[in-house]
Amino acid sequence: MRIGELSRRSGVPVPTIKYYVREGLLPAGRLTSPNQARYDDGHERRLRLIRALLDVGGLPLSAIAEVLGAVDDTAQPLHEVLGVAAVRITPAQAGDPAGVGPESAEAREEVAALLARRGWRVEPDNPAAQSLAGVLAALRRAGHGGFVELLDVYADAAESVAHADLDYVRRRVAREDLVESVVVGTVLGEAMFGALRRLAHVDASARAYEGGREAEPGAR
Amino acid sequence: MRIGELSRRSGVPVPTIKYYVREGLLPAGRLTSPNQARYDDGHERRLRLIRALLDVGGLPLSAIAEVLGAVDDTAQPLHEVLGVAAVRITPAQAGDPAGVGPESAEAREEVAALLARRGWRVEPDNPAAQSLAGVLAALRRAGHGGFVELLDVYADAAESVAHADLDYVRRRVAREDLVESVVVGTVLGEAMFGALRRLAHVDASARAYEGGREAEPGAR
Repeated sequence: MRIGELSRRSGVPVPTIKYYVREGLLPAGRLTSPNQARYDDGHERRLRLIRALLDVGGLPLSAIAEVLGAVDDTAQPLHEVLGVAAVRITPAQAGDPAGVGPESAEAREEVAALLARRGWRVEPDNPAAQSLAGVLAALRRAGHGGFVELLDVYADAAESVAHADLDYVRRRVAREDLVESVVVGTVLGEAMFGALRRLAHVDASARAYEGGREAEPGAR
Repeated sequence: MRIGELSRRSGVPVPTIKYYVREGLLPAGRLTSPNQARYDDGHERRLRLIRALLDVGGLPLSAIAEVLGAVDDTAQPLHEVLGVAAVRITPAQAGDPAGVGPESAEAREEVAALLARRGWRVEPDNPAAQSLAGVLAALRRAGHGGFVELLDVYADAAESVAHADLDYVRRRVAREDLVESVVVGTVLGEAMFGALRRLAHVDASARAYEGGREAEPGAR
């Protein structure tokens, strides 16, 4: 198809498509004349993926470019690519800007203890472990250390979701599909969980505070 | 304490503290002379809360200002305040920019069916319901409609986390504590879950793809 058709089908404006090609996010079309290129279903699918990561996942274009680069670089071993994908899609804000002080040291020990307790095979310098330590330290600094007691309830929920994610990923055979499904699952899965948790909050809060009937015993 | 001491204890620079006071995020200190104000533990705690929402939660200052305004406005009924808090801390990017097309209509029906199936007392026009519909539509558009099948696994996990959150909140007696704990729990809880889910991914992926021992039967 021509670029105009690709734009109509994907909902992405032509100048934006050209920009993605220049930035290396989207492969160039196949030239059929000096001024005309043809695009195929692969281009359309890649465009939809970029838009999902951008609009719903809120990833910056630079992170999307790096992840897609790793997906396309077939010389990289699969485990490396999955690592790049996981690190680049970790939200940058979930860090611990201070990273010092008694709360931070305590939080790092707490994360190490959690990993040991659950038998999770994760290096302690994994960015997600650092993010988690940052969250725990911030909770303490904000006067909400009690929230840290919910860690294992959260870890149980995270584990069951992560296993479902992995089952989804393992159904993929082709390498590109596999990595793409990790990226999509991580980013859009996080947005999906966030929305569901807020809906469950509304329900729980309505039952608790709106008066009317209370939660039925055992409904939890 | 003086502003210099408040800055040392909270780790927030003096000009930033003054900026927060001007923007209404932090109550002004008590004037002890025309040029000098005194601050107390409440100011320190509020500063730590602002920093946690900003640095770890990634909330924009405008959303923080609005939420804190609702917390401080004691004339507002509690349920209203909780509503403002929940809406303002919903990440803006988790929307459905297009919002049209067959995927969007299907996604909205799917969310309505989910709410009915689970018996969640949520209005269909709740922003989180719209976010969820946006995520489902984006998954389909990106060619990952199969991921939508994980919806109930995710909803189970979200429900158990939300009940733990509410138990934490219900331990609060004072109104300000209650609303603050909702804000902290929603924002930092989301960051906590995100980090835990990524750690659980690393573990599950190590077991599945790194070779060596496979996951023990029943370990899931």
